[in-house]
Amino acid sequence: MKVTVVGANGQIGKQLVHFLKEEEGYTPIAMVRKEEQAESFAKDGIESVLADLEGSVEDLANAFKGSDAVVFTAGSGGSTGSEMTLLIDLDGAAKTVEAAEKAGISRYVMVSAFQADNRENWNDDLRPYYVAKHYADKVLMASGLDYTIVRPGGLVNESGTGKVEIGDNIEPGSIAREDVAKVLLAVIGAKNTYGAAFDVVAGEDNVEEAVSKI
Amino acid sequence: MKVTVVGANGQIGKQLVHFLKEEEGYTPIAMVRKEEQAESFAKDGIESVLADLEGSVEDLANAFKGSDAVVFTAGSGGSTGSEMTLLIDLDGAAKTVEAAEKAGISRYVMVSAFQADNRENWNDDLRPYYVAKHYADKVLMASGLDYTIVRPGGLVNESGTGKVEIGDNIEPGSIAREDVAKVLLAVIGAKNTYGAAFDVVAGEDNVEEAVSKI
Repeated sequence: MKVTVVGANGQIGKQLVHFLKEEEGYTPIAMVRKEEQAESFAKDGIESVLADLEGSVEDLANAFKGSDAVVFTAGSGGSTGSEMTLLIDLDGAAKTVEAAEKAGISRYVMVSAFQADNRENWNDDLRPYYVAKHYADKVLMASGLDYTIVRPGGLVNESGTGKVEIGDNIEPGSIAREDVAKVLLAVIGAKNTYGAAFDVVAGEDNVEEAVSKI
Repeated sequence: MKVTVVGANGQIGKQLVHFLKEEEGYTPIAMVRKEEQAESFAKDGIESVLADLEGSVEDLANAFKGSDAVVFTAGSGGSTGSEMTLLIDLDGAAKTVEAAEKAGISRYVMVSAFQADNRENWNDDLRPYYVAKHYADKVLMASGLDYTIVRPGGLVNESGTGKVEIGDNIEPGSIAREDVAKVLLAVIGAKNTYGAAFDVVAGEDNVEEAVSKI
């Protein structure tokens, strides 16, 4: 199964790409913006495709061609301001949904944000980001794709534990980016997660087990 | 017909409220944020309701109760930055759609932006604003409301001519805010515009005539 990872040069994306490379039955394709990023992946034997979330749906659809699944792990990053939040986290994400449909790819996994579905639980400081994620998720849900929406808690860079808690109504918490990547890996091929959206934080269940119960 | 005008203190909203007051069969309700704005409308014999687009859907639904239609004329304004664009032009607008549904109001008219439906025609300088309008319109279209989406060209403050061009594939142009308000007035009760979305610029057709042909 060929999986295009959007945002492959990001902190979650990079780990996911490497997990996919080690996992039997999967071939990652790292979608990146810059030639030097592609070269860096090539050194690890990982195929890349150049495309930009500020580009057209057509360009993105061409980049996706030949893949069986798309995983959206990109983020404008907190420091770039709300303009990039609108252009990348919302419109960029929505364009990849349209592009997946155009390219005939049915499987799509989105990295969203904890409780992005629930306006009342949005952190006031991050509210514009939550708005963007909320509506990107809505676009995905309204699409015809076999989607899964993964909404991680506060992202931290420490090593993962491989143990998580998954649900719709769980206590807020943090999660290692490595564990988010592990959840994505487990979710991609899991048909029980098609059409599902869930929050995930660090917890006590093995990733595989938690995902199988969704 | 009671019509709640969201953004009644804005440049289009204020004119619409006054047109509605003069029009037989209509009663405007000016939705404003501040008591002094309400007092100013009261002096002209216009009823107001206090509510904030940054508030909850419940508060907005309460503000809408008893109305027969909602017209969204609010805008964060170009100078407030993309954060307010996300919070007001996108999430604020979407909340009024949800609130109208909650309050049992079926008629909803949205002021959008020229070609907001067509990503390829977005002005690069205004791109974040267009993103917000695009997805707010999508939320409205996906709702169960009897909507009309009015997408005016470049807004100018000079007096209106009462003459417009309406279409989906017309040349870009400008339009007086007064004429946008006239189009809104003509659209509110026009069942032929239910489920329609159109661009409008200054032109040669009388507003009533142009609206009747939609």
